[in-house]
Amino acid sequence: MRLLPHPATEDIQLTEVLRALSDPVRMEIVIRLALRGEMTCTSAGDDLGVHKSTASHHYRALREAGVIMSKQEGRLKYISLRRTDLDARFPGLLDSILSAAHVPV
Amino acid sequence: MRLLPHPATEDIQLTEVLRALSDPVRMEIVIRLALRGEMTCTSAGDDLGVHKSTASHHYRALREAGVIMSKQEGRLKYISLRRTDLDARFPGLLDSILSAAHVPV
Repeated sequence: MRLLPHPATEDIQLTEVLRALSDPVRMEIVIRLALRGEMTCTSAGDDLGVHKSTASHHYRALREAGVIMSKQEGRLKYISLRRTDLDARFPGLLDSILSAAHVPV
Repeated sequence: MRLLPHPATEDIQLTEVLRALSDPVRMEIVIRLALRGEMTCTSAGDDLGVHKSTASHHYRALREAGVIMSKQEGRLKYISLRRTDLDARFPGLLDSILSAAHVPV
């Protein structure tokens, strides 16, 4: 398993998280991860209406902001929401954003 | 008193609010308004470290996203946080963002 670079929990910045979530496609990816848990990039990107390379760009933006965790296992790349880290850093923030996006929390 | 165009409460979009708050200078403006209530643009922009025209651009971005209300009275322009509208549209969102920014809510 290979981990890509991720910010440590204490280095996650509020404005970076908000910027990462300010794109509708990235918000949709986060909603899917919130609802379904860990997913492969391929399934997370299904029917997003964007090219695979654009989806990869969005995963990278979410990872660099500290919103998602990415890991490579063989030929598959998995992503998941850093819910525990975000809750520790900014209590209540992720839940209120997901609620605003009509995701049951 | 002259009101500039503002989105109606029901037209405020989550990703637009998050985008408006994803800039550190705009976040600082919102923090000031949360702490002090209505302010003139001149005092809200004090010591932000940006040119007056840049501050104006930020006020506009915040207004268009539905985060602040702007009104012109004579030669003075006043801005205030649309707290009631934001709370109605996205309950808990603004408070959780302000808390994450270490503002007492």
